[in-house]
Amino acid sequence: MTLRELLRLPPGEPVDLAGYDARATPGAPDGKEAAQADRERMARRLAGLQERLWAAGTAGDHRRVLLVLQGMDTSGKGGTVKHVIGQLNPSGCRIHAFKAPTEEERAHDFLWRVRRVLPEPGEIGIFDRSHYEDVLIARVRQLAPPAEIGSRHGLINDFERELAEDGVTLVKCFLHLSYEEQKRRLLRRLDRPDKHWKFHPSDIDERALWPAYQEAYELALERCAAPHAPWYLVPADRKWYRNWAVSRLLLEHLRELDPRYPEAGFDVAESRERLLKQA
Amino acid sequence: MTLRELLRLPPGEPVDLAGYDARATPGAPDGKEAAQADRERMARRLAGLQERLWAAGTAGDHRRVLLVLQGMDTSGKGGTVKHVIGQLNPSGCRIHAFKAPTEEERAHDFLWRVRRVLPEPGEIGIFDRSHYEDVLIARVRQLAPPAEIGSRHGLINDFERELAEDGVTLVKCFLHLSYEEQKRRLLRRLDRPDKHWKFHPSDIDERALWPAYQEAYELALERCAAPHAPWYLVPADRKWYRNWAVSRLLLEHLRELDPRYPEAGFDVAESRERLLKQA
Repeated sequence: MTLRELLRLPPGEPVDLAGYDARATPGAPDGKEAAQADRERMARRLAGLQERLWAAGTAGDHRRVLLVLQGMDTSGKGGTVKHVIGQLNPSGCRIHAFKAPTEEERAHDFLWRVRRVLPEPGEIGIFDRSHYEDVLIARVRQLAPPAEIGSRHGLINDFERELAEDGVTLVKCFLHLSYEEQKRRLLRRLDRPDKHWKFHPSDIDERALWPAYQEAYELALERCAAPHAPWYLVPADRKWYRNWAVSRLLLEHLRELDPRYPEAGFDVAESRERLLKQA
Repeated sequence: MTLRELLRLPPGEPVDLAGYDARATPGAPDGKEAAQADRERMARRLAGLQERLWAAGTAGDHRRVLLVLQGMDTSGKGGTVKHVIGQLNPSGCRIHAFKAPTEEERAHDFLWRVRRVLPEPGEIGIFDRSHYEDVLIARVRQLAPPAEIGSRHGLINDFERELAEDGVTLVKCFLHLSYEEQKRRLLRRLDRPDKHWKFHPSDIDERALWPAYQEAYELALERCAAPHAPWYLVPADRKWYRNWAVSRLLLEHLRELDPRYPEAGFDVAESRERLLKQA
């Protein structure tokens, strides 16, 4: 069984996050060390596939990948970029971390800023947070009228269908963290002066809204999933598992894409001859 | 002696590229393996400094780094990004590869497209080619009137002074490749079907203009160098040296910047107490 099948939430079915153990390690090699070793092996295969995807992109292949990382504070979105994406060739990665929208961004529809940072053909795009914030914090914090927020699930589905039809392989990962582990991670940020910059007192206010966030996630995971854009629930209490699982999901998707080096669009023998004739 | 001092071209002095051995390895550890090992050690220090630069950036420190990579075809600009920048946290890197300008870009002054992709505070920007193309290929291929091209050295100097005053540390590397090594590398691209996509017959036409390109580089290296924006001449016939030298130059610059984790802008004890009170 592939990891995609193991972690994929069935599109359209209600999701009960309390039913998923955030410390689970479905499909993983036996323990942390084995998973790290497997990740090293995967890194080489990922790099090879990434180069082929890029090469194909230079010859008109429109396909690209978009990894969407969502999860509560401290669930490890940044850590995933560092450890998983850090194993790829940075030239072919287009990373965007979404913050609170700027005034200019707020003046447009919520997908406007997303469309501007999509991966180009051949690239692997990475969203650290995404358009889903507009049905998560926007819902919990009531940043827009309820009817407008309610309409966004449908708009997201239209948008993602459009992306898929345009050659984008969506890999949407929900990093599933437990309430207890979040507390440990926030306390660690407070305990270490070199982590204080990652902390803001408002993180505690957000944490107080945990049940509302879980509900907003459950709704998004149920409503915004489709065969071409499923959600993967990645248990995230164990960092080594989270890194292994996202690497594995990327690898499975890239393998299925099976990008190929393009054929030479020129006469190789003739070019060699011309080159050899030069002094 | 630092590598910066070893590789720095003296600002304002005429440059004779023929006088520099592209196979040289100034300042390097003894041989390829020792250099690789040193690069692993440097990678950890680079990652630490990068995180501090980023952390400082979140607290109002405007400083950032801009690595400019220039050099003839096959000199290893892309390889440097892959191997050197690939050791950093991709979240803090903003990479841009400059291609032939688009119609929109050509409708603006030549620095317009450059200003749009500059690193933000805390980031390390990487230019694979740069605004220097506008005094290199533009000069050799006469893509603009001579007087206009002639004026660009001064405009580049003004631009780079402005950047330096705005907190940008410029690390400009000229990857110095020999004419013979370029031939070997182009032939290798022709010999391997998985490298054909990197080759275009026009590469041979460009190579035929080698002397004109060297002259355009000499002029740029002489005219567009300043104490705040010097050029480093990195011998690039040996890939391991090129990677080691660029890593080392980045490390020396980041060390001098000496970015610091910011002080907590909140009451740590109070936050801890509030957090512990939550269920």
